[in-house]
Amino acid sequence: MTTNTPYEVSVVKLGGSVGKNPAAFCRDAAELLGRGQRLVIVHGGSEHTNELAEALGHPSQFITSPSGHTSRRTDRRTLEIMQMACRGLLNQQIVEQLQGHGVRAIGLSGMDGGIWRGERKAAIRAVIDGRVTVVRDDFTGAVSEVNVILLRTLLDAGFTPVLSPPAVSFGGEPINVDADRAAAMTAAALGARNLLLLSNVPGLLAKFPDESSLIDRLPKSQIEAAQSAAQGRMKKKVLGAGEALQLGVRRVVIGDARRHSPITEALLGVGTVIE
Amino acid sequence: MTTNTPYEVSVVKLGGSVGKNPAAFCRDAAELLGRGQRLVIVHGGSEHTNELAEALGHPSQFITSPSGHTSRRTDRRTLEIMQMACRGLLNQQIVEQLQGHGVRAIGLSGMDGGIWRGERKAAIRAVIDGRVTVVRDDFTGAVSEVNVILLRTLLDAGFTPVLSPPAVSFGGEPINVDADRAAAMTAAALGARNLLLLSNVPGLLAKFPDESSLIDRLPKSQIEAAQSAAQGRMKKKVLGAGEALQLGVRRVVIGDARRHSPITEALLGVGTVIE
Repeated sequence: MTTNTPYEVSVVKLGGSVGKNPAAFCRDAAELLGRGQRLVIVHGGSEHTNELAEALGHPSQFITSPSGHTSRRTDRRTLEIMQMACRGLLNQQIVEQLQGHGVRAIGLSGMDGGIWRGERKAAIRAVIDGRVTVVRDDFTGAVSEVNVILLRTLLDAGFTPVLSPPAVSFGGEPINVDADRAAAMTAAALGARNLLLLSNVPGLLAKFPDESSLIDRLPKSQIEAAQSAAQGRMKKKVLGAGEALQLGVRRVVIGDARRHSPITEALLGVGTVIE
Repeated sequence: MTTNTPYEVSVVKLGGSVGKNPAAFCRDAAELLGRGQRLVIVHGGSEHTNELAEALGHPSQFITSPSGHTSRRTDRRTLEIMQMACRGLLNQQIVEQLQGHGVRAIGLSGMDGGIWRGERKAAIRAVIDGRVTVVRDDFTGAVSEVNVILLRTLLDAGFTPVLSPPAVSFGGEPINVDADRAAAMTAAALGARNLLLLSNVPGLLAKFPDESSLIDRLPKSQIEAAQSAAQGRMKKKVLGAGEALQLGVRRVVIGDARRHSPITEALLGVGTVIE
Protein backbone atom coordinates (compact mmCIF):
# COMPACT_ATOMS: atom_id res chain seq x y z
CA MET A 1 0.00 0.00 0.00
CA THR A 2 1.59 3.26 -1.12
CA THR A 3 -0.33 5.69 1.11
CA ASN A 4 -3.52 5.92 3.10
CA THR A 5 -4.48 9.54 3.74
CA PRO A 6 -8.21 10.34 3.44
CA TYR A 7 -9.22 11.38 -0.07
CA GLU A 8 -12.60 12.57 -1.34
CA VAL A 9 -13.23 9.69 -3.70
CA SER A 10 -15.46 6.64 -3.91
CA VAL A 11 -14.38 3.39 -5.55
CA VAL A 12 -17.21 1.61 -7.37
CA LYS A 13 -17.01 -1.99 -8.56
CA LEU A 14 -19.46 -2.92 -11.32
CA GLY A 15 -20.30 -6.62 -11.39
CA GLY A 16 -19.50 -8.37 -14.64
CA SER A 17 -22.97 -9.65 -15.46
CA VAL A 18 -24.47 -6.17 -15.10
CA GLY A 19 -21.50 -4.87 -17.07
CA LYS A 20 -23.34 -6.26 -20.08
CA ASN A 21 -25.76 -3.36 -19.82
CA PRO A 22 -23.99 -0.54 -17.98
CA ALA A 23 -26.29 2.20 -19.31
CA ALA A 24 -27.93 3.08 -15.97
CA PHE A 25 -24.60 2.76 -14.16
CA CYS A 26 -22.84 5.12 -16.58
CA ARG A 27 -25.65 7.69 -16.58
CA ASP A 28 -25.67 7.67 -12.78
CA ALA A 29 -21.87 7.99 -12.63
CA ALA A 30 -22.02 10.98 -14.99
CA GLU A 31 -24.64 12.70 -12.79
CA LEU A 32 -22.60 12.15 -9.63
CA LEU A 33 -19.42 13.41 -11.29
CA GLY A 34 -21.39 16.44 -12.45
CA ARG A 35 -22.21 17.10 -8.79
CA GLY A 36 -18.50 17.10 -7.91
CA GLN A 37 -18.14 13.52 -6.72
CA ARG A 38 -14.89 11.76 -7.60
CA LEU A 39 -15.13 8.15 -8.69
CA VAL A 40 -12.73 5.36 -9.55
CA ILE A 41 -14.59 2.63 -11.42
CA VAL A 42 -13.51 -1.01 -11.34
CA HIS A 43 -14.99 -3.88 -13.34
CA GLY A 44 -14.34 -7.55 -13.99
CA GLY A 45 -15.54 -9.38 -17.05
CA SER A 46 -16.07 -13.07 -16.30
CA GLU A 47 -19.03 -13.42 -18.64
CA HIS A 48 -17.30 -11.63 -21.53
CA THR A 49 -14.25 -13.84 -20.95
CA ASN A 50 -16.35 -17.03 -20.87
CA GLU A 51 -18.12 -16.11 -24.11
CA LEU A 52 -14.92 -15.21 -25.97
CA ALA A 53 -13.17 -18.33 -24.64
CA GLU A 54 -16.06 -20.43 -25.92
CA ALA A 55 -16.04 -18.71 -29.32
CA LEU A 56 -12.28 -19.23 -29.64
CA GLY A 57 -12.45 -22.91 -28.74
CA HIS A 58 -10.62 -22.53 -25.43
CA PRO A 59 -13.57 -22.83 -23.02
CA SER A 60 -13.20 -21.56 -19.46
CA GLN A 61 -12.18 -24.03 -16.80
CA PHE A 62 -12.56 -23.57 -13.08
CA ILE A 63 -10.51 -25.24 -10.38
CA THR A 64 -11.51 -25.96 -6.80
CA SER A 65 -9.05 -25.64 -3.94
CA PRO A 66 -8.95 -28.29 -1.19
CA SER A 67 -10.77 -25.75 1.03
CA GLY A 68 -13.59 -25.56 -1.52
CA HIS A 69 -12.86 -22.19 -3.20
CA THR A 70 -13.35 -22.21 -6.96
CA SER A 71 -11.33 -19.96 -9.27
CA ARG A 72 -10.73 -19.58 -12.98
CA ARG A 73 -8.00 -21.76 -14.46
CA THR A 74 -5.78 -19.08 -16.02
CA ASP A 75 -3.23 -20.51 -18.41
CA ARG A 76 -1.45 -18.06 -20.73
CA ARG A 77 -4.08 -18.39 -23.47
CA THR A 78 -6.91 -17.82 -21.00
CA LEU A 79 -5.05 -14.74 -19.79
CA GLU A 80 -4.88 -13.40 -23.36
CA ILE A 81 -8.59 -14.07 -23.84
CA MET A 82 -9.27 -12.25 -20.56
CA GLN A 83 -7.20 -9.27 -21.72
CA MET A 84 -9.16 -9.12 -24.97
CA ALA A 85 -12.55 -9.47 -23.28
CA CYS A 86 -11.99 -7.31 -20.18
CA ARG A 87 -9.46 -4.73 -21.31
CA GLY A 88 -10.20 -4.73 -25.00
CA LEU A 89 -13.98 -4.92 -25.06
CA LEU A 90 -15.89 -4.39 -21.79
CA ASN A 91 -13.56 -1.68 -20.49
CA GLN A 92 -13.77 0.28 -23.73
CA GLN A 93 -17.57 -0.11 -23.85
CA ILE A 94 -17.85 1.41 -20.37
CA VAL A 95 -15.43 4.19 -21.34
CA GLU A 96 -17.49 4.86 -24.49
CA GLN A 97 -20.76 5.10 -22.56
CA LEU A 98 -19.26 7.33 -19.88
CA GLN A 99 -17.74 9.62 -22.52
CA GLY A 100 -21.16 9.69 -24.20
CA HIS A 101 -22.37 11.39 -20.99
CA GLY A 102 -19.48 13.85 -21.05
CA VAL A 103 -17.29 12.01 -18.54
CA ARG A 104 -13.55 12.23 -19.16
CA ALA A 105 -13.15 8.49 -18.71
CA ILE A 106 -9.79 6.80 -19.08
CA GLY A 107 -9.62 3.01 -19.29
CA LEU A 108 -6.64 1.25 -17.75
CA SER A 109 -5.79 -2.32 -16.94
CA GLY A 110 -4.01 -3.12 -13.69
CA MET A 111 -0.89 -3.50 -15.86
CA ASP A 112 -1.06 -0.01 -17.36
CA GLY A 113 1.33 2.16 -15.39
CA GLY A 114 1.65 -0.71 -12.92
CA ILE A 115 -1.55 0.41 -11.20
CA TRP A 116 -2.22 -2.99 -9.58
CA ARG A 117 0.78 -5.03 -8.48
CA GLY A 118 0.86 -8.27 -6.54
CA GLU A 119 2.41 -11.68 -6.03
CA ARG A 120 1.80 -14.35 -8.64
CA LYS A 121 0.86 -17.65 -7.01
CA ALA A 122 3.78 -19.95 -7.80
CA ALA A 123 1.64 -23.02 -7.35
CA ILE A 124 -2.06 -23.64 -6.80
CA ARG A 125 -3.42 -26.72 -5.06
CA ALA A 126 -6.48 -27.96 -6.89
CA VAL A 127 -8.76 -30.95 -6.48
CA ILE A 128 -8.91 -32.69 -9.87
CA ASP A 129 -10.77 -36.00 -10.18
CA GLY A 130 -10.86 -36.21 -6.40
CA ARG A 131 -7.09 -35.92 -6.07
CA VAL A 132 -5.17 -32.83 -4.87
CA THR A 133 -2.93 -31.69 -7.71
CA VAL A 134 -0.45 -28.80 -7.90
CA VAL A 135 -0.98 -26.43 -10.86
CA ARG A 136 2.15 -24.40 -11.66
CA ASP A 137 1.44 -22.60 -14.97
CA ASP A 138 -1.47 -20.54 -13.63
CA PHE A 139 -1.35 -16.72 -13.93
CA THR A 140 -3.27 -15.68 -10.84
CA GLY A 141 -2.56 -13.64 -7.76
CA ALA A 142 -3.90 -10.84 -5.58
CA VAL A 143 -3.30 -7.09 -5.61
CA SER A 144 -1.10 -5.90 -2.75
CA GLU A 145 0.19 -2.57 -4.13
CA VAL A 146 -1.74 0.22 -5.88
CA ASN A 147 -0.08 3.05 -7.81
CA VAL A 148 -1.91 5.82 -5.97
CA ILE A 149 0.25 8.57 -7.45
CA LEU A 150 -0.90 7.73 -10.98
CA LEU A 151 -4.56 7.48 -9.92
CA ARG A 152 -4.40 10.82 -8.07
CA THR A 153 -2.59 12.46 -10.98
CA LEU A 154 -5.44 11.38 -13.26
CA LEU A 155 -8.18 12.32 -10.76
CA ASP A 156 -6.59 15.72 -10.14
CA ALA A 157 -6.47 16.27 -13.91
CA GLY A 158 -10.22 15.67 -14.07
CA PHE A 159 -10.20 12.10 -15.40
CA THR A 160 -12.28 9.20 -14.17
CA PRO A 161 -10.20 5.98 -14.19
CA VAL A 162 -11.97 2.81 -15.30
CA LEU A 163 -9.86 -0.11 -14.05
CA SER A 164 -9.87 -3.68 -15.27
CA PRO A 165 -7.94 -6.89 -14.57
CA PRO A 166 -5.34 -8.22 -15.11
CA ALA A 167 -2.87 -6.86 -12.56
CA VAL A 168 0.91 -7.21 -12.97
CA SER A 169 3.05 -9.49 -10.83
CA PHE A 170 6.28 -8.37 -9.17
CA GLY A 171 7.94 -10.52 -11.82
CA GLY A 172 6.26 -8.43 -14.54
CA GLU A 173 3.70 -11.00 -15.68
CA PRO A 174 0.01 -10.24 -16.08
CA ILE A 175 -1.98 -11.96 -13.33
CA ASN A 176 -5.68 -12.62 -13.09
CA VAL A 177 -6.98 -11.04 -9.88
CA ASP A 178 -10.38 -10.85 -8.22
CA ALA A 179 -11.84 -7.48 -9.20
CA ASP A 180 -13.83 -7.08 -5.95
CA ARG A 181 -10.70 -7.46 -3.86
CA ALA A 182 -8.69 -5.30 -6.29
CA ALA A 183 -11.36 -2.60 -5.86
CA ALA A 184 -11.03 -3.00 -2.08
CA MET A 185 -7.25 -2.54 -2.23
CA THR A 186 -7.71 0.47 -4.53
CA ALA A 187 -10.18 2.08 -2.11
CA ALA A 188 -7.82 1.41 0.80
CA ALA A 189 -4.79 2.79 -1.05
CA LEU A 190 -6.70 5.97 -1.97
CA GLY A 191 -8.10 6.27 1.55
CA ALA A 192 -11.50 6.38 -0.16
CA ARG A 193 -14.62 7.34 1.76
CA ASN A 194 -16.73 4.63 0.17
CA LEU A 195 -16.22 1.29 -1.49
CA LEU A 196 -19.33 0.25 -3.41
CA LEU A 197 -19.51 -3.35 -4.60
CA LEU A 198 -22.42 -3.48 -7.04
CA SER A 199 -23.73 -6.65 -8.67
CA ASN A 200 -26.99 -8.37 -9.59
CA VAL A 201 -28.18 -8.94 -6.03
CA PRO A 202 -29.65 -6.44 -3.53
CA GLY A 203 -26.74 -7.04 -1.17
CA LEU A 204 -25.73 -9.70 1.35
CA LEU A 205 -28.60 -12.14 1.81
CA ALA A 206 -29.24 -14.12 5.00
CA LYS A 207 -31.00 -16.85 2.99
CA PHE A 208 -29.45 -16.80 -0.49
CA PRO A 209 -31.08 -16.48 -3.05
CA ASP A 210 -34.11 -15.09 -1.13
CA GLU A 211 -33.83 -11.35 -1.92
CA SER A 212 -36.25 -10.54 0.93
CA SER A 213 -33.58 -11.76 3.36
CA LEU A 214 -31.31 -8.73 2.75
CA ILE A 215 -28.97 -7.90 5.62
CA ASP A 216 -29.06 -4.09 5.49
CA ARG A 217 -26.44 -3.41 8.17
CA LEU A 218 -23.43 -5.56 9.00
CA PRO A 219 -21.26 -4.58 11.97
CA LYS A 220 -17.51 -5.03 11.42
CA SER A 221 -17.53 -7.67 14.18
CA GLN A 222 -19.78 -9.97 12.15
CA ILE A 223 -17.80 -9.85 8.90
CA GLU A 224 -16.01 -13.15 9.45
CA ALA A 225 -19.22 -15.02 10.26
CA ALA A 226 -20.93 -13.39 7.25
CA GLN A 227 -18.04 -14.41 5.02
CA SER A 228 -18.27 -18.07 5.89
CA ALA A 229 -22.05 -17.95 5.51
CA ALA A 230 -21.87 -16.16 2.13
CA GLN A 231 -22.34 -18.05 -1.15
CA GLY A 232 -20.02 -18.11 -4.17
CA ARG A 233 -18.80 -14.73 -5.36
CA MET A 234 -20.36 -13.01 -2.34
CA LYS A 235 -17.59 -14.57 -0.22
CA LYS A 236 -15.03 -12.47 -2.12
CA LYS A 237 -17.11 -9.30 -1.71
CA VAL A 238 -17.37 -9.74 2.05
CA LEU A 239 -13.66 -10.61 2.22
CA GLY A 240 -12.83 -7.46 0.20
CA ALA A 241 -15.14 -5.39 2.42
CA GLY A 242 -13.32 -6.59 5.51
CA GLU A 243 -9.92 -5.88 3.99
CA ALA A 244 -10.98 -2.38 2.93
CA LEU A 245 -12.33 -1.46 6.39
CA GLN A 246 -9.21 -2.92 8.00
CA LEU A 247 -7.13 -0.60 5.81
CA GLY A 248 -9.08 2.55 6.60
CA VAL A 249 -11.98 2.77 4.15
CA ARG A 250 -14.84 4.36 6.10
CA ARG A 251 -17.79 2.53 4.59
CA VAL A 252 -18.43 -0.41 2.29
CA VAL A 253 -21.81 -0.92 0.63
CA ILE A 254 -22.67 -4.16 -1.17
CA GLY A 255 -25.38 -2.86 -3.47
CA ASP A 256 -27.63 -3.64 -6.42
CA ALA A 257 -26.30 -2.71 -9.86
CA ARG A 258 -29.75 -3.35 -11.41
CA ARG A 259 -31.36 -0.31 -9.79
CA HIS A 260 -32.26 2.89 -11.63
CA SER A 261 -29.41 4.89 -10.06
CA PRO A 262 -27.20 2.13 -8.68
CA ILE A 263 -24.28 4.25 -7.49
CA THR A 264 -26.38 7.02 -5.94
CA GLU A 265 -28.58 4.51 -4.13
CA ALA A 266 -25.58 2.62 -2.77
CA LEU A 267 -24.11 5.93 -1.57
CA LEU A 268 -27.44 6.54 0.18
CA GLY A 269 -27.05 3.21 1.97
CA VAL A 270 -29.37 1.00 -0.10
CA GLY A 271 -27.94 -2.52 0.16
CA THR A 272 -25.73 -4.02 2.84
CA VAL A 273 -23.84 -1.29 4.65
CA ILE A 274 -20.67 -2.33 6.45
CA GLU A 275 -18.89 0.22 8.66
CA MET B 1 -4.30 20.52 -32.58
CA THR B 2 -4.08 21.61 -28.96
CA THR B 3 -0.60 23.11 -28.92
CA ASN B 4 2.63 22.94 -30.83
CA THR B 5 5.54 24.13 -28.71
CA PRO B 6 8.78 22.12 -29.12
CA TYR B 7 9.05 19.25 -26.68
CA GLU B 8 11.90 16.82 -26.13
CA VAL B 9 10.10 13.71 -27.23
CA SER B 10 10.13 11.31 -30.15
CA VAL B 11 7.01 9.53 -31.39
CA VAL B 12 7.66 5.99 -32.62
CA LYS B 13 5.18 3.98 -34.66
CA LEU B 14 5.72 0.21 -34.59
CA GLY B 15 4.34 -1.55 -37.65
CA GLY B 16 1.75 -4.20 -36.93
CA SER B 17 3.49 -7.14 -38.54
CA VAL B 18 6.67 -6.52 -36.54
CA GLY B 19 4.46 -5.99 -33.51
CA LYS B 20 4.18 -9.76 -33.47
CA ASN B 21 7.74 -9.87 -32.17
CA PRO B 22 8.46 -6.54 -30.46
CA ALA B 23 11.33 -7.90 -28.34
CA ALA B 24 14.13 -5.94 -30.03
CA PHE B 25 11.94 -2.84 -30.25
CA CYS B 26 11.07 -2.96 -26.53
CA ARG B 27 14.68 -3.62 -25.44
CA ASP B 28 15.87 -0.71 -27.58
CA ALA B 29 13.12 1.58 -26.23
CA ALA B 30 14.14 0.70 -22.67
CA GLU B 31 17.80 1.53 -23.39
CA LEU B 32 16.89 4.89 -24.95
CA LEU B 33 14.59 5.77 -22.06
CA GLY B 34 17.41 4.83 -19.70
CA ARG B 35 19.54 7.42 -21.50
CA GLY B 36 16.93 10.13 -20.82
CA GLN B 37 15.08 10.01 -24.15
CA ARG B 38 11.32 10.52 -23.97
CA LEU B 39 9.19 8.32 -26.20
CA VAL B 40 5.54 8.01 -27.12
CA ILE B 41 4.92 4.65 -28.75
CA VAL B 42 2.12 4.07 -31.26
CA HIS B 43 1.10 0.76 -32.81
CA GLY B 44 -1.61 -0.61 -35.05
CA GLY B 45 -2.65 -4.25 -35.12
CA SER B 46 -4.01 -5.21 -38.53
CA GLU B 47 -2.62 -8.74 -38.42
CA HIS B 48 -3.89 -9.41 -34.89
CA THR B 49 -7.29 -8.06 -35.96
CA ASN B 50 -7.37 -10.22 -39.09
CA GLU B 51 -6.50 -13.36 -37.14
CA LEU B 52 -9.08 -12.74 -34.40
CA ALA B 53 -11.73 -11.82 -36.99
CA GLU B 54 -11.03 -15.08 -38.79
CA ALA B 55 -11.18 -17.10 -35.56
CA LEU B 56 -14.50 -15.47 -34.62
CA GLY B 57 -16.07 -16.13 -38.02
CA HIS B 58 -16.25 -12.46 -38.99
CA PRO B 59 -13.38 -12.32 -41.50
CA SER B 60 -11.83 -8.97 -42.39
CA GLN B 61 -13.14 -7.20 -45.46
CA PHE B 62 -11.43 -4.38 -47.31
CA ILE B 63 -13.07 -1.75 -49.46
CA THR B 64 -11.57 0.21 -52.32
CA SER B 65 -12.41 3.85 -52.92
CA PRO B 66 -13.08 5.15 -56.45
CA SER B 67 -9.59 6.73 -56.28
CA GLY B 68 -8.08 3.31 -55.59
CA HIS B 69 -7.33 3.53 -51.84
CA THR B 70 -8.15 0.36 -49.92
CA SER B 71 -9.23 0.43 -46.28
CA ARG B 72 -10.66 -1.96 -43.72
CA ARG B 73 -14.44 -2.37 -43.74
CA THR B 74 -15.19 -1.45 -40.11
CA ASP B 75 -18.70 -2.38 -39.06
CA ARG B 76 -19.48 -2.36 -35.33
CA ARG B 77 -18.48 -6.00 -34.87
CA THR B 78 -15.19 -5.44 -36.69
CA LEU B 79 -14.57 -2.47 -34.43
CA GLU B 80 -15.11 -4.66 -31.34
CA ILE B 81 -12.73 -7.26 -32.75
CA MET B 82 -10.19 -4.51 -33.41
CA GLN B 83 -10.55 -3.26 -29.82
CA MET B 84 -9.95 -6.77 -28.49
CA ALA B 85 -6.97 -7.44 -30.76
CA CYS B 86 -5.24 -4.03 -30.67
CA ARG B 87 -6.18 -2.64 -27.28
CA GLY B 88 -6.75 -5.88 -25.44
CA LEU B 89 -3.94 -8.04 -26.72
CA LEU B 90 -1.13 -6.39 -28.74
CA ASN B 91 -1.06 -3.21 -26.66
CA GLN B 92 -0.84 -5.15 -23.42
CA GLN B 93 1.86 -7.44 -24.82
CA ILE B 94 3.99 -4.41 -25.71
CA VAL B 95 3.31 -2.89 -22.27
CA GLU B 96 4.30 -6.18 -20.63
CA GLN B 97 7.58 -6.42 -22.56
CA LEU B 98 8.46 -2.78 -21.87
CA GLN B 99 7.71 -3.22 -18.17
CA GLY B 100 9.88 -6.34 -18.24
CA HIS B 101 12.74 -3.96 -19.12
CA GLY B 102 11.81 -1.61 -16.27
CA VAL B 103 9.89 0.89 -18.44
CA ARG B 104 6.91 2.53 -16.74
CA ALA B 105 4.70 1.82 -19.73
CA ILE B 106 1.04 2.79 -19.77
CA GLY B 107 -1.21 1.43 -22.50
CA LEU B 108 -4.00 3.66 -23.79
CA SER B 109 -6.35 3.52 -26.73
CA GLY B 110 -7.15 6.71 -28.59
CA MET B 111 -10.47 6.62 -26.70
CA ASP B 112 -8.91 6.56 -23.25
CA GLY B 113 -8.98 10.10 -21.94
CA GLY B 114 -10.02 11.19 -25.43
CA ILE B 115 -6.38 11.16 -26.52
CA TRP B 116 -7.20 10.91 -30.24
CA ARG B 117 -10.31 12.70 -31.48
CA GLY B 118 -11.52 13.11 -35.04
CA GLU B 119 -14.40 13.20 -37.48
CA ARG B 120 -16.21 9.96 -38.25
CA LYS B 121 -16.76 9.58 -42.00
CA ALA B 122 -20.53 9.79 -42.37
CA ALA B 123 -20.41 7.92 -45.67
CA ILE B 124 -17.69 6.12 -47.59
CA ARG B 125 -17.76 5.68 -51.35
CA ALA B 126 -16.61 2.19 -52.24
CA VAL B 127 -16.32 0.26 -55.48
CA ILE B 128 -18.21 -3.00 -54.96
CA ASP B 129 -18.66 -5.39 -57.91
CA GLY B 130 -17.53 -2.59 -60.22
CA ARG B 131 -20.21 -0.19 -59.00
CA VAL B 132 -19.64 2.82 -56.72
CA THR B 133 -21.66 2.23 -53.55
CA VAL B 134 -22.08 4.40 -50.45
CA VAL B 135 -21.31 2.67 -47.13
CA ARG B 136 -22.92 4.41 -44.15
CA ASP B 137 -22.40 2.11 -41.15
CA ASP B 138 -18.60 2.26 -41.22
CA PHE B 139 -16.71 3.36 -38.10
CA THR B 140 -13.68 5.05 -39.61
CA GLY B 141 -12.16 8.50 -39.56
CA ALA B 142 -8.92 10.39 -39.03
CA VAL B 143 -7.35 11.96 -35.94
CA SER B 144 -7.52 15.76 -35.95
CA GLU B 145 -7.14 16.52 -32.22
CA VAL B 146 -4.68 15.09 -29.70
CA ASN B 147 -5.02 15.45 -25.92
CA VAL B 148 -1.51 16.80 -25.40
CA ILE B 149 -2.16 17.79 -21.79
CA LEU B 150 -2.83 14.17 -20.82
CA LEU B 151 0.21 12.92 -22.74
CA ARG B 152 2.49 15.53 -21.17
CA THR B 153 1.07 14.85 -17.72
CA LEU B 154 1.99 11.18 -18.15
CA LEU B 155 5.41 11.92 -19.69
CA ASP B 156 6.22 14.41 -16.93
CA ALA B 157 5.24 11.78 -14.35
CA GLY B 158 7.77 9.40 -15.91
CA PHE B 159 5.41 7.19 -17.88
CA THR B 160 5.83 6.01 -21.46
CA PRO B 161 2.45 6.06 -23.26
CA VAL B 162 1.76 3.16 -25.63
CA LEU B 163 -1.08 4.29 -27.91
CA SER B 164 -3.39 2.13 -30.00
CA PRO B 165 -6.43 2.65 -32.26
CA PRO B 166 -9.35 3.19 -32.15
CA ALA B 167 -9.72 6.95 -31.75
CA VAL B 168 -12.97 8.57 -30.60
CA SER B 169 -15.23 10.59 -32.89
CA PHE B 170 -16.62 14.01 -31.96
CA GLY B 171 -19.90 12.13 -31.62
CA GLY B 172 -18.32 9.86 -29.01
CA GLU B 173 -18.07 6.71 -31.13
CA PRO B 174 -14.92 4.65 -31.48
CA ILE B 175 -13.43 5.11 -34.95
CA ASN B 176 -10.82 3.06 -36.75
CA VAL B 177 -7.95 5.34 -37.73
CA ASP B 178 -4.70 4.83 -39.60
CA ALA B 179 -2.03 4.43 -36.91
CA ASP B 180 0.76 5.99 -39.04
CA ARG B 181 -1.24 9.17 -39.52
CA ALA B 182 -2.39 9.11 -35.88
CA ALA B 183 1.29 8.91 -34.88
CA ALA B 184 2.00 11.86 -37.19
CA MET B 185 -0.74 13.96 -35.57
CA THR B 186 0.54 12.96 -32.13
CA ALA B 187 4.11 14.02 -33.00
CA ALA B 188 2.80 17.30 -34.41
CA ALA B 189 0.62 18.00 -31.36
CA LEU B 190 3.54 17.34 -29.01
CA GLY B 191 5.91 19.37 -31.18
CA ALA B 192 8.07 16.26 -31.20
CA ARG B 193 11.62 16.35 -32.54
CA ASN B 194 11.30 13.06 -34.35
CA LEU B 195 8.57 10.94 -35.84
CA LEU B 196 9.83 7.42 -36.53
CA LEU B 197 7.64 5.20 -38.70
CA LEU B 198 9.06 1.68 -38.35
CA SER B 199 7.85 -1.34 -40.28
CA ASN B 200 9.16 -4.39 -42.11
CA VAL B 201 10.89 -2.51 -44.93
CA PRO B 202 14.19 -0.54 -44.85
CA GLY B 203 12.31 2.67 -45.72
CA LEU B 204 10.87 4.25 -48.85
CA LEU B 205 11.93 2.21 -51.88
CA ALA B 206 12.35 3.66 -55.40
CA LYS B 207 11.60 0.21 -56.90
CA PHE B 208 9.34 -1.60 -54.42
CA PRO B 209 10.00 -4.34 -53.27
CA ASP B 210 13.69 -4.05 -54.22
CA GLU B 211 15.27 -3.24 -50.81
CA SER B 212 18.48 -2.09 -52.52
CA SER B 213 16.51 0.83 -53.98
CA LEU B 214 16.19 2.61 -50.62
CA ILE B 215 15.72 6.37 -50.86
CA ASP B 216 17.81 7.53 -47.89
CA ARG B 217 17.00 11.25 -48.06
CA LEU B 218 13.73 12.78 -49.23
CA PRO B 219 13.48 16.58 -49.47
CA LYS B 220 10.16 18.04 -48.34
CA SER B 221 9.61 19.25 -51.91
CA GLN B 222 9.46 15.69 -53.25
CA ILE B 223 6.96 14.31 -50.72
CA GLU B 224 3.95 14.57 -53.02
CA ALA B 225 5.70 12.83 -55.89
CA ALA B 226 6.96 10.13 -53.50
CA GLN B 227 3.46 9.65 -52.13
CA SER B 228 1.92 8.94 -55.51
CA ALA B 229 4.84 6.65 -56.38
CA ALA B 230 4.61 4.75 -53.06
CA GLN B 231 2.92 1.34 -52.83
CA GLY B 232 0.12 0.27 -50.48
CA ARG B 233 0.64 1.15 -46.81
CA MET B 234 3.74 3.20 -47.65
CA LYS B 235 1.40 5.81 -49.19
CA LYS B 236 -0.05 6.46 -45.70
CA LYS B 237 3.42 6.71 -44.15
CA VAL B 238 4.56 9.32 -46.67
CA LEU B 239 1.25 11.16 -46.27
CA GLY B 240 1.70 11.12 -42.48
CA ALA B 241 5.29 12.27 -42.82
CA GLY B 242 4.19 15.23 -44.92
CA GLU B 243 1.45 16.15 -42.44
CA ALA B 244 3.86 15.94 -39.51
CA LEU B 245 6.50 18.17 -41.14
CA GLN B 246 3.77 20.62 -42.19
CA LEU B 247 2.71 20.84 -38.54
CA GLY B 248 6.19 21.46 -37.16
CA VAL B 249 7.83 18.08 -36.55
CA ARG B 250 11.51 18.56 -37.30
CA ARG B 251 12.35 15.18 -38.76
CA VAL B 252 10.56 12.07 -39.95
CA VAL B 253 12.37 8.77 -40.46
CA ILE B 254 10.73 5.85 -42.23
CA GLY B 255 12.83 3.04 -40.79
CA ASP B 256 13.23 -0.70 -40.44
CA ALA B 257 11.62 -2.32 -37.38
CA ARG B 258 13.46 -5.59 -38.11
CA ARG B 259 16.89 -4.22 -37.17
CA HIS B 260 18.77 -5.04 -33.97
CA SER B 261 18.14 -1.60 -32.43
CA PRO B 262 15.32 -0.27 -34.62
CA ILE B 263 14.57 2.96 -32.74
CA THR B 264 18.21 3.94 -32.14
CA GLU B 265 19.12 3.27 -35.77
CA ALA B 266 16.18 5.32 -37.04
CA LEU B 267 17.20 8.17 -34.70
CA LEU B 268 20.68 7.90 -36.26
CA GLY B 269 19.12 8.35 -39.69
CA VAL B 270 19.08 4.76 -40.95
CA GLY B 271 16.14 4.55 -43.36
CA THR B 272 14.44 7.30 -45.33
CA VAL B 273 15.02 10.64 -43.63
CA ILE B 274 12.53 13.40 -44.46
CA GLU B 275 13.23 16.93 -43.15
